[in-house]
Amino acid sequence: MGERIDVLRLGHRKGRDPRITTHLALVARAMGADRFLLGGDEDEKMFENVRSVESRFGQAMDLEYLASPMGWLRTFARKDAGDGQPGTVVHLTMYGLPHREAIPHIRRDRPITVVVGGAKVPPEAFSLAHHNVSVGQQPHSEVAALALFLDAWTEGAGLDRRFDAPKLVIHPSARGKSVTEEE
Amino acid sequence: MGERIDVLRLGHRKGRDPRITTHLALVARAMGADRFLLGGDEDEKMFENVRSVESRFGQAMDLEYLASPMGWLRTFARKDAGDGQPGTVVHLTMYGLPHREAIPHIRRDRPITVVVGGAKVPPEAFSLAHHNVSVGQQPHSEVAALALFLDAWTEGAGLDRRFDAPKLVIHPSARGKSVTEEE
Repeated sequence: MGERIDVLRLGHRKGRDPRITTHLALVARAMGADRFLLGGDEDEKMFENVRSVESRFGQAMDLEYLASPMGWLRTFARKDAGDGQPGTVVHLTMYGLPHREAIPHIRRDRPITVVVGGAKVPPEAFSLAHHNVSVGQQPHSEVAALALFLDAWTEGAGLDRRFDAPKLVIHPSARGKSVTEEE
Repeated sequence: MGERIDVLRLGHRKGRDPRITTHLALVARAMGADRFLLGGDEDEKMFENVRSVESRFGQAMDLEYLASPMGWLRTFARKDAGDGQPGTVVHLTMYGLPHREAIPHIRRDRPITVVVGGAKVPPEAFSLAHHNVSVGQQPHSEVAALALFLDAWTEGAGLDRRFDAPKLVIHPSARGKSVTEEE
């Protein structure tokens, strides 16, 4: 799957966004992200929901709250992606360049952070980003945008990721539900 | 774009699901659906939000509330897709067959209804469906599943759909926001 993928959700509002942000985190987990970073309100309940999925369906992704997400992003983009070198920032916004055109121009030899905006995106997100990328030029859903971007970025391999120590495994079935419990 | 695409959201709960269902409707609109059908609670506010996007960004999709969604689906699947012949029902569920494997087996010469479950999906949805289709075997998001299915079904063309009489048009841009107001 190549270099590591972080997903950074900006501007989470605890009272209003828990389901959307949970969907974002579960999409990140299901489609290849190594870490989900939360900016905005701290939300232990939301983290618990995601951890509960991880404990049942298998470990794949770290979760972290960032008190200063833009500071973190500045460091990541300009100085240190964890190895002393800058990483690549991809900002998902309906104002950006279409993802299928943009992806071939995004370098694949460095960790990337995919930034997903919230209610109000600081203008600095646009300027810090190495790539402002749209998934369609219509308002729809940051959940859909993240899923379509990760699917295209991983060339479909994101959905085939492996999970460690799952208790539940779902088996594809034409009718009904086929689930095995491990251990 | 071929035969018509309806998206049917089952089991909408007015108090709990408005944002997720709005995202589903906007994804349907942005990615090629001709009509969004709502089952569960009636929700005029949610419809107004979607109509407001349509009036600003252009008309593309009809919205309809179904008091008896399973009855409607039964008729569509077995008798009449609007032209006196049955249509094709695709039910999105994490228990189904992987979408990229399933899609080549879905007939393209008939209208399809893509069924997106809610909190509780009636077992009949599985049996009425001509295809139970998963987008990954992990819990993530019905919004992501719908987006990835429609993208694959339309072979990427869904995101390029045209909208009638938009007041706002967004132009792809590497930095910042480029929007023109029409009229």
